[in-house]
Amino acid sequence: MAVERRFWGWGFEGSGLTSSEQLDLAELVRPAVGGHALDPIDPPSPAELDLDPPRLVPPQALAAWCLLDDVARAGHTYGKSFRDVVRALDRRWDRPPDVVVAPPDEAGVVAVLEWASQVGAVVIPYGGGSSVVGGVEAPADDDRPVISCDLGRLDRVLDVDRTSRAARIQAGVLGPSLEAQLRLHDLTLRHYPQSFEVSSLGGWLATRAGGHFATLHTHIDDFVESIRAITPQGPWESRRLPASGAGPSPDRLLLGSEGIFGVITEAWMRLQDRPRFRASGVARFATFEAGATAARALVQSGLWPSNCRLLDATEALVTGSGDGSAHLLLIGFESADHPVDDALARAVVLAADHGGTIEPAADRGTRQSKPAVDTADRWRATFLRAPYIRDSLVGLGLINETFETAITWDRFDAFVAGIRSTTEDALRSVGAWPGLVTCRLTHAYPDGAAPYFTIIAPGRHSGRLEQWAEVKGAVMDAIASGGGTVTHHHAVGRDHRPGYDRQRPDLFAAQLRAAKLVVDPGALLNPGVLIDP
Amino acid sequence: MAVERRFWGWGFEGSGLTSSEQLDLAELVRPAVGGHALDPIDPPSPAELDLDPPRLVPPQALAAWCLLDDVARAGHTYGKSFRDVVRALDRRWDRPPDVVVAPPDEAGVVAVLEWASQVGAVVIPYGGGSSVVGGVEAPADDDRPVISCDLGRLDRVLDVDRTSRAARIQAGVLGPSLEAQLRLHDLTLRHYPQSFEVSSLGGWLATRAGGHFATLHTHIDDFVESIRAITPQGPWESRRLPASGAGPSPDRLLLGSEGIFGVITEAWMRLQDRPRFRASGVARFATFEAGATAARALVQSGLWPSNCRLLDATEALVTGSGDGSAHLLLIGFESADHPVDDALARAVVLAADHGGTIEPAADRGTRQSKPAVDTADRWRATFLRAPYIRDSLVGLGLINETFETAITWDRFDAFVAGIRSTTEDALRSVGAWPGLVTCRLTHAYPDGAAPYFTIIAPGRHSGRLEQWAEVKGAVMDAIASGGGTVTHHHAVGRDHRPGYDRQRPDLFAAQLRAAKLVVDPGALLNPGVLIDP
Repeated sequence: MAVERRFWGWGFEGSGLTSSEQLDLAELVRPAVGGHALDPIDPPSPAELDLDPPRLVPPQALAAWCLLDDVARAGHTYGKSFRDVVRALDRRWDRPPDVVVAPPDEAGVVAVLEWASQVGAVVIPYGGGSSVVGGVEAPADDDRPVISCDLGRLDRVLDVDRTSRAARIQAGVLGPSLEAQLRLHDLTLRHYPQSFEVSSLGGWLATRAGGHFATLHTHIDDFVESIRAITPQGPWESRRLPASGAGPSPDRLLLGSEGIFGVITEAWMRLQDRPRFRASGVARFATFEAGATAARALVQSGLWPSNCRLLDATEALVTGSGDGSAHLLLIGFESADHPVDDALARAVVLAADHGGTIEPAADRGTRQSKPAVDTADRWRATFLRAPYIRDSLVGLGLINETFETAITWDRFDAFVAGIRSTTEDALRSVGAWPGLVTCRLTHAYPDGAAPYFTIIAPGRHSGRLEQWAEVKGAVMDAIASGGGTVTHHHAVGRDHRPGYDRQRPDLFAAQLRAAKLVVDPGALLNPGVLIDP
Repeated sequence: MAVERRFWGWGFEGSGLTSSEQLDLAELVRPAVGGHALDPIDPPSPAELDLDPPRLVPPQALAAWCLLDDVARAGHTYGKSFRDVVRALDRRWDRPPDVVVAPPDEAGVVAVLEWASQVGAVVIPYGGGSSVVGGVEAPADDDRPVISCDLGRLDRVLDVDRTSRAARIQAGVLGPSLEAQLRLHDLTLRHYPQSFEVSSLGGWLATRAGGHFATLHTHIDDFVESIRAITPQGPWESRRLPASGAGPSPDRLLLGSEGIFGVITEAWMRLQDRPRFRASGVARFATFEAGATAARALVQSGLWPSNCRLLDATEALVTGSGDGSAHLLLIGFESADHPVDDALARAVVLAADHGGTIEPAADRGTRQSKPAVDTADRWRATFLRAPYIRDSLVGLGLINETFETAITWDRFDAFVAGIRSTTEDALRSVGAWPGLVTCRLTHAYPDGAAPYFTIIAPGRHSGRLEQWAEVKGAVMDAIASGGGTVTHHHAVGRDHRPGYDRQRPDLFAAQLRAAKLVVDPGALLNPGVLIDP
């Protein structure tokens, strides 16, 4: 149980921006969002919480794992989306779980599901709680009691197979603890989503999280050997294999299942040797489109850079990676086995071929234990801090949200331009303008890329959620109409259901419902996420 | 319709071994299988066929697409496994389809399913018909009439997106025609299973076929953007995307579905530029285990060779790749973008580090349009010819079968030794000894590899299928007990059901059954494959 977690927003108590840093941020952002004064909203304090009493009394056998206090319940009411932070700052706790239960082991998970089944309660599997899509909150249209099942105590690496470079890992482990345990074996999962510090292996698997590698092995999916889950109908466990052609992949049905089939309790994961060789560079482009074309050439080259992230000029400025005068393509290679200088040299040629101007990078071509501080590193540091900054911006009354998708290259330029203008138009039409709409590519593929949009815009006092809902709806509609995916790595949850329902084959949704009925006939598990059971 | 296909065995009429080549083969093999004379069995001729009359009369609208003659029906009765060829040579046609129908387009597939539904017939989707696992034959325990739905007329590349390097392709196209159509755009799918000449895109997708690349993108799965299928409940089509995190992947439910959910009619596939740079080498090892350790080092290096195939000494001898004095690791790199000499050089060092002695290769480090003839090429030529040789061996009364699987590296040596000894013991116990049991690695992964065993053994006259069944059962049992997969890329079909049923999670099988009921409530489609509907 992560008792030190901030119950109303991102991350840990004591982390994030100080009050004076927040005021500096306000001054920095103010000119871009209309120039009005931006007054900080006081975050809620534990003393202010006054939730309705829980409607469940844990049985004796489970009582020791259960938390019924307001802070635990408020902290498990939402994920960590813009909408969640706004609701928390509004002192609004729509449908808190009646009980937060943190079973100490898999048998405990079984016991929790049995109890839920007996009392007719909904169970929300809860890993790190970092969902930004309404993935861990109770359904609004379902008045059963709610149990938030926090997997935080299932946090150990159980077995390490050094020969195969794989480990059996409990699903509740958060990123830093996982990497610390693997470091003892000189191994690493190298999965660094933005939520790394506050998200869990099980959450990554359940949401098909996107990670460290900008090309090739972009999603956690690619590192799975097998998954074990507890369903209301019993355990579900796939065979540990390096590859198989035996029928549809069982793992791929659990990957992205967002808790609707079972509570993932552990997985055998493929690991990496720690990189010993690195090389990186930054290419500057006059237009975002030129940078994207270079990224396409790079990812179609078969060089498989670990970093291939394109920041538009404003995104580069806002994240401190650039001065806003150019669009930046961050290129990085890493290897545990061989120098990667030649790969970088070829990538630099490809970037230059498409109009890129190369910035020298401090660590290019050097063999090193620590990367030097350069543009890419500045960007990476900002990357993990961004959600804290988001909370501070939200705390200034602003709208700060992200939209991410993926699209094939043939439609890329028009699609990105369309999403950008749809976003700006929507912000204007709800009176949240002037503001910023920035874009980066988080992951790139031979046949397309994943654009990621960030907005910072002035919100109406006590009307931000309505503004957000209109903008979110307009963007989701544009993504669905433009042929993109409603999410590349943020998952579907409740927030993306309208777009998802247009995207997935109808018969596939019916198959998911049928598959759910098999393992969860009582529809206990995370109802309303992905499908209506 | 591939009218020139051989109705009783592999490939095309006029291809394969001549009678005198078959006699040479007999002399070559005889010493290894006991020294008895090996007399060729005459293959069946069309004139000998005398099937029961069809129990279906096609409706007027479909009549033009239907074949009811004995050659077409016999040719669609089985796939092309050892068991299938033996049955054909035995003039045994267990359960021929009543009608072979080859719809000219997708609307025709819809009409075929409607007709089947009306008359209560089973439909077996038939691509290239090269199944070696009983994947395209009628269920023995089901006496409904049978329609073999031959997709051979859906053989066109419909759209090419050069920017994204992708194409929309009809599912019935066979390998050579597909590559010829893509060559016009200077693109290639580069999927070369051993069945390349007589297997279809739809078949590859439905069976998760393994292809050209020995590492990284080993299965057809990795090249799928979207799939379209016709189910008895209507069309099923996923959205074309380079990547997505929106729920469980719809495509992954169709991949490996072996026809039980629908008839795959087309797919958007990721393509490759044609390679311009190649480098290859061969490393010799004193033991298979040492070669496997080198393969592991190579595949864990992140160099991602396109070829990384280990042949045991006997396999090297039999395929003409070596003299039988050493185990050979064939290493190859290819790229459309950059020279791969340095990658080969590093691979050679890794092989040498693990006891490999390097054979010089004719084409190492050269930029070329055609690869030089070297060990790897000799092996490749033999590779595509192997199924024809198999038919000739079967025609000599021998047992010639393959078993393939995948296992993690930690268990690899013991597992391979166990499968080898299980196979030899089983052959001995059924009186099919002396014989040959050879092994190669077809694909390699950072966390494991796919061993592929070939047996050539003396069969009892008119008792070979019983011998085969015992050996197959023993090996399948050893694979299941040893923790391998029942198939790495040959699919499950009917033959692998016992092993598959032990391998997949029970609840997953129940989910597959439920998912089937949604799209195929009448259980028309390929019943008995993968699951009992």
